[in-house]
Amino acid sequence: MNQVIELLKSHRSIRKFTAEPIDQSTVDELVRAGQAAATSSFLQACTVIQVQDPAKRERLAACAGNQAYIAAAPTFLVFCADMKRHQLACDMHQAQMQSGFTEQFITATADAALFAQNVAIAAESLGLGIVYIGGLRNEIAEVAELLELPELVYPVFGMCLGFPDQSPETKPRLPLSVVLKQDRYDDSQDTAVIARYDEEVREYYRTRTGAAKVMSWSEQISGMLIKEARPHMLAFLQRCGFLKK
Amino acid sequence: MNQVIELLKSHRSIRKFTAEPIDQSTVDELVRAGQAAATSSFLQACTVIQVQDPAKRERLAACAGNQAYIAAAPTFLVFCADMKRHQLACDMHQAQMQSGFTEQFITATADAALFAQNVAIAAESLGLGIVYIGGLRNEIAEVAELLELPELVYPVFGMCLGFPDQSPETKPRLPLSVVLKQDRYDDSQDTAVIARYDEEVREYYRTRTGAAKVMSWSEQISGMLIKEARPHMLAFLQRCGFLKK
Repeated sequence: MNQVIELLKSHRSIRKFTAEPIDQSTVDELVRAGQAAATSSFLQACTVIQVQDPAKRERLAACAGNQAYIAAAPTFLVFCADMKRHQLACDMHQAQMQSGFTEQFITATADAALFAQNVAIAAESLGLGIVYIGGLRNEIAEVAELLELPELVYPVFGMCLGFPDQSPETKPRLPLSVVLKQDRYDDSQDTAVIARYDEEVREYYRTRTGAAKVMSWSEQISGMLIKEARPHMLAFLQRCGFLKK
Repeated sequence: MNQVIELLKSHRSIRKFTAEPIDQSTVDELVRAGQAAATSSFLQACTVIQVQDPAKRERLAACAGNQAYIAAAPTFLVFCADMKRHQLACDMHQAQMQSGFTEQFITATADAALFAQNVAIAAESLGLGIVYIGGLRNEIAEVAELLELPELVYPVFGMCLGFPDQSPETKPRLPLSVVLKQDRYDDSQDTAVIARYDEEVREYYRTRTGAAKVMSWSEQISGMLIKEARPHMLAFLQRCGFLKK
């Protein structure tokens, strides 16, 4: 449709990078592009921690379930949802900040995600590759301690960045009819459509990996969702001052 | 730096649109660009409701605190965090889905936000303007009922799209040092930096609106955060099957 949309549609996660570093001036520019994203009520509730210390990188890689590319990537960023700076703003005016609302958790998390996606797109526009690292939430308390995050700040996800040393295919997405609805939520046709999509996903794995992992979408999802999902999360976030009411 | 980064950095919310409609084929393409964003564990947990029904648009505009441009915009999309389709996937395999985890709320909310930001950028690359509508969460239960959202689906925010009939300036963002930290969270200098930024924001309002609203960033934030933030949110989300544990 145009080059920007082509860029967006060509996204795939990159987990193997060349040794070429990313200039700090480029990292700064990526973060400025992130800042330009929309922000709920002008809150600007995202803080990025750039992790350069090799020992911290190793610890983060371990926290995320031994994803070695976290240690190896030229650049690693942690995107945090941050309501701490609003505490500073309130302190500047002797105002009593009301925190702990679920609404604030949503706005800060969404702010961090919009910000990060701008960083991802800016990076990809420069020929860099990226992968989001949600696995930091496996050991979120340790990550928060390692990065000295105060109350009212939590790490939403990380991102590895660098010049790609691999070229995986894009992964097929759900058919449009499942994802885009008109005027009301109607999923009466979705099971049948997902069943057809399942075959497409199976074919994707078949041609891409040989017989190593030939699983449909619904198989992957159901296999994952019969398990608990990071059950420590709510207690951790409440200790950080989020999701209390 | 390049045209994509220039595009990202030129974002500003557009609330006034020409009457020119957006072709459905373009809307479809925007949503496909949204789908191409990264998705946590391949969950694809975002559903978009395109609202065309004028009566529903009017109701949504009222829900969001009488933002008339919601009714008037050529296109209006509601981005929902959706774990319902994973219930379908589990049903296809007689698997017992474990839902209600805070972790799933984070992944679904982040998925919706990454998706929406791709839609926003794709739209802006075509010369369209957008504004996110978090105000839908003012009356989130009514929005969910109006769009017939089932359990495990919640509206994160809406988005107005159309060809701009205004050209506001971009809004100054926090200085980079507040937002980008090295290896650890250190905000010891932030209050002083914010105080300088406050003057920049004041100047922005002064030159843009005359004397109508000349407030610094920290004044706006502290004025907002002394109030409760949509205190109905947690109970609503728990009724939808989210944030139970």
